[in-house]
Amino acid sequence: MKIKVAGIGLTKFGELWNKSLLDLALEASINAIKDSRIDKREIDAVFVGNMLIGKIAGQDHLGPVVASSLGLSAASFRVEGACASGGLAVHLAIQGILANTYKNVLVVGAEKMTDASSNQITWALMGASSSKERKAGLTFPALYALMTQAHMQKYGTTRKQLAEVSVKNHYHASLNKKAQYSCEVTTEKVLNSALISSPITLFDSSPITDGAGAVVLSAPTQSGSINNSSKGIFITGSAVASDTIDLAERDSLTELKATQMASKKALEQAGVETKDIKVCEVHDCFTIAEIMAMEDLGFCPKGMGGKFIEKGSSRLGSKCPVNTSGGLKACGHPVGATGVKQIVEITEQLRKTAGARQVKDANCGLTQNVGGTGATVVVHVLQT
Amino acid sequence: MKIKVAGIGLTKFGELWNKSLLDLALEASINAIKDSRIDKREIDAVFVGNMLIGKIAGQDHLGPVVASSLGLSAASFRVEGACASGGLAVHLAIQGILANTYKNVLVVGAEKMTDASSNQITWALMGASSSKERKAGLTFPALYALMTQAHMQKYGTTRKQLAEVSVKNHYHASLNKKAQYSCEVTTEKVLNSALISSPITLFDSSPITDGAGAVVLSAPTQSGSINNSSKGIFITGSAVASDTIDLAERDSLTELKATQMASKKALEQAGVETKDIKVCEVHDCFTIAEIMAMEDLGFCPKGMGGKFIEKGSSRLGSKCPVNTSGGLKACGHPVGATGVKQIVEITEQLRKTAGARQVKDANCGLTQNVGGTGATVVVHVLQT
Repeated sequence: MKIKVAGIGLTKFGELWNKSLLDLALEASINAIKDSRIDKREIDAVFVGNMLIGKIAGQDHLGPVVASSLGLSAASFRVEGACASGGLAVHLAIQGILANTYKNVLVVGAEKMTDASSNQITWALMGASSSKERKAGLTFPALYALMTQAHMQKYGTTRKQLAEVSVKNHYHASLNKKAQYSCEVTTEKVLNSALISSPITLFDSSPITDGAGAVVLSAPTQSGSINNSSKGIFITGSAVASDTIDLAERDSLTELKATQMASKKALEQAGVETKDIKVCEVHDCFTIAEIMAMEDLGFCPKGMGGKFIEKGSSRLGSKCPVNTSGGLKACGHPVGATGVKQIVEITEQLRKTAGARQVKDANCGLTQNVGGTGATVVVHVLQT
Repeated sequence: MKIKVAGIGLTKFGELWNKSLLDLALEASINAIKDSRIDKREIDAVFVGNMLIGKIAGQDHLGPVVASSLGLSAASFRVEGACASGGLAVHLAIQGILANTYKNVLVVGAEKMTDASSNQITWALMGASSSKERKAGLTFPALYALMTQAHMQKYGTTRKQLAEVSVKNHYHASLNKKAQYSCEVTTEKVLNSALISSPITLFDSSPITDGAGAVVLSAPTQSGSINNSSKGIFITGSAVASDTIDLAERDSLTELKATQMASKKALEQAGVETKDIKVCEVHDCFTIAEIMAMEDLGFCPKGMGGKFIEKGSSRLGSKCPVNTSGGLKACGHPVGATGVKQIVEITEQLRKTAGARQVKDANCGLTQNVGGTGATVVVHVLQT
């Protein structure tokens, strides 16, 4: 499998009061198309990843909303899988190219979350979990708190280790101008921040964010004018796996089986192993999620994720830095945009255009995008 | 292009007060899987077409909701494109098979509309159109009323001709046990029914419906145990086209360009012409929509759609009966289900299992599924 990442675009992430969802989607899209140097008339499909705008602002049918605003005459689609909407949109766009139905596809993930009240956004986000969990009052922090407690009990993971994920990702975000929170934080600050759902604190949690990311994907035969070597970045693995929507129905609370399944497939497609990955972006919606991702992706043995982060094994300068963008925690988490933004960040790293947060010799990267509590996981592998 | 329709399933359409969205989706899915005789462990992807349940009941992330309720270990996706959600889900499932990523894919379109109040459902459905149109108070009947008025003025189409679409589709529905309204209606009844948005009356309009349809699609090489000749039905064309989301931005109100574009592509893929189509299901959300579809698909010249229906050219017994299921008007229109139900109906016709509404010698059929006022159109061609 070889799909060219022909162009990328990303808005600033944050509380963007003066921009609408469409403003954000168009800004990222226009930049991605410009970056690809592909004539927009050559773009034959548009995939939009978005979770919330129907519920928050009433707008559905985002495929043609975005496509027609861009003046594109293209087939258009909206894909939704909670916080994995962006990753799923990338995966389905790739299928359209592999099927030889589409040649140049724009994928845009966008979310406008700050316009909603906090009650409204909490309710809207709970749509990612099961109706049983909603009825039980289990918000997302509560569900991840259950996983955190189980991991602490089973493997001795400590609150300090969890906090180190946040400290590292804030450090990375301090090097990223697009990040929502570019301030560094100390371990003490994370530990002493407000308790959200025990043991998860405010600084263990990703924020409410507005933002959009876009990529133009092309068939490898579509060289066009984009074949200068600095842009020869390809997606070589793309896999999706599902798990039960109910956390209660799983065998284990301390792993995401869908991460294990999707990464196995994606790595096989790419013909690489975890040890070959030089940089990755994972779905750290809460600090426990990054710790489990490290284990489930095979960067460390099961249960050792806490020690792994504590040793600095995923910090910039290590063998494989994780969440160089700042991750969901500090770069921000506009839910439908996250999966696409991860591809944008890895592409920057593989192009060697990541500036102060550049990973040396990055030639192979991975993204892991999670929907809900792991009912959907999308993994992509990118290579030069 | 050749994709096997391995199995089909359809619930009763109607006001199904004792069934939830999930009940409906599972019933259709289980029947489609059973009909396919494929072991459910062999199903490697699930595509769910749904527009409204997030807004009405808060539930998003339907891919794993459906997949895990069925006990499937499969990649899962939700696809949304307003009333074309079902058709788009079929199209994207096909891409996954053509890409050789998935072998046997379940596509289920489902909608549960009657649980919402009429204000809520009107608001929810308006998400299919642009924010400008919503702010102007243009509900869906109002938008289609503008198209109807333009067609009447430009081509002399009469209210009586419009009514004949409803009369025919109610007649077809009287032969379909799954239909929401199996009562026949007279021209007078349609003309004298309550005015909704001039000149559209209640009986020019499709109803609010609960229901679900499902198909299992397979790679043609996946013979399994399903290769008995009565089930050798294939999708041979699948195309999507988009148009402006705003009606006001179009050159013409009397045609859907996206229908013309998508049908041209799908027919080319299938290697057939309109004259080869023996049966079709089109998106008659309002009577004018079927008249425009006949013109845009090439069954009659532009502007002659009124005369075409008046002459009985699309009634059971004619050369190419249209909406043998009863169409959206009389079989019902559970919006996310419609595109999938159309494939189910044409498959029944091509299998020669359509009972009292069987079209003689049906060996080639077409479906046309519209999102909003034509911002999305999906066309499929099916052949024996």
